[in-house]
Amino acid sequence: MDEVKIITVKQNVLASNEKDAEQLRAYMKEHRTYLLNIMSSPGSGKTTLLKATIKALKNEMKIGVLEADIDSDVDAKAIQEAGADSIQLHTGGMCHLTADMTRQGIIEFNKDRHYDLLIIENVGNLVCPAEFDTGATDSVVLLSVPEGDDKALKYPLMFEVTSALVVTKIDVAPYFDFDLEKCKKNALMRNKDIKIMALSAKTGQGLDKWLDFLRSKVKKAKGE
Amino acid sequence: MDEVKIITVKQNVLASNEKDAEQLRAYMKEHRTYLLNIMSSPGSGKTTLLKATIKALKNEMKIGVLEADIDSDVDAKAIQEAGADSIQLHTGGMCHLTADMTRQGIIEFNKDRHYDLLIIENVGNLVCPAEFDTGATDSVVLLSVPEGDDKALKYPLMFEVTSALVVTKIDVAPYFDFDLEKCKKNALMRNKDIKIMALSAKTGQGLDKWLDFLRSKVKKAKGE
Repeated sequence: MDEVKIITVKQNVLASNEKDAEQLRAYMKEHRTYLLNIMSSPGSGKTTLLKATIKALKNEMKIGVLEADIDSDVDAKAIQEAGADSIQLHTGGMCHLTADMTRQGIIEFNKDRHYDLLIIENVGNLVCPAEFDTGATDSVVLLSVPEGDDKALKYPLMFEVTSALVVTKIDVAPYFDFDLEKCKKNALMRNKDIKIMALSAKTGQGLDKWLDFLRSKVKKAKGE
Repeated sequence: MDEVKIITVKQNVLASNEKDAEQLRAYMKEHRTYLLNIMSSPGSGKTTLLKATIKALKNEMKIGVLEADIDSDVDAKAIQEAGADSIQLHTGGMCHLTADMTRQGIIEFNKDRHYDLLIIENVGNLVCPAEFDTGATDSVVLLSVPEGDDKALKYPLMFEVTSALVVTKIDVAPYFDFDLEKCKKNALMRNKDIKIMALSAKTGQGLDKWLDFLRSKVKKAKGE
């Protein structure tokens, strides 16, 4: 197995993040790659969902993953083991990725390969990553059952800027006081257009809907 | 029941946070109040642990809770229902509390009452709150079983600046791939002096150790 490549991405404080994000979106459109930004709290199951996603889709499309973390490369290693290319982006203590930091990662990563689906696993945090457009085509938020159904009340912006909410770890719902209908209601209050899916990457329950969501987005990005 | 009081605390960008923190610590020492800063991811069980703590200790000591949140007052309401005073601090979108923001909350809160134990429930986030000394006597980090045993690898600073790690939701350990020994090892790698407790606020398992920890800290702050 290849060693995990780690690059330290730096914030360009003088640049306009909005402009950088638009440029990156145009670049991805030109390359017909669907760039998806995944955000959530630490431990809500981003890496586990990605591993299940790669296993299910790797024979249909070329997938790459950009793993953003303050430190460590445990996630990038796990992704490589699942069978997709991955690169680890170290943010040097920063709690989010900017569009320019994403661009640095993609340019390093994308040199001589074409990806159908590129996924950013953003820093685990429900606050700061929501404030910075990464330049992704879409952003989604993961919320795991153990975190509780009230998170859209407490972290409004995260649910306003994402086009889909994926409720994860639905298999452990019987052990927690989690009301899926209340969770949906809270999310829709923040964003009436948010698409909501509930799944368990562990048991596979509800995974098909998520995979179909990705398939249709990738197809659209390829112009099919 | 009283309405929850909400104040919007603002960051003083010109001040030195270290200096503010030392001043607040001196003020709390003078008032013989133990000020504890609790940090964790969203949904790791801060409020649930606080409710169980208040229930167990409210006849022994006077407890107040400062609830920091981007938005909403659901936590402050839950704390009041559990039988302790609480105030909601809105950070205006900011992902952490500074010492000056904490001071604003305490001054508003503490006017004519004396607390033995004041608890700050910091914004749910494993990154940013670790970077700002709130002026608390101690800081602790909560990590719930569903979040995984690798969090000290990914969020090093959080485990370096806290004097105790409380592993929560230990009752659901059978349903997750969570290795408590690995979790302890990772935390101790970041901070060899970190005190580690594992508990379930729901079942009460391990709660005594946590309550004794608080009792001894409060006793020390009172100079007994």
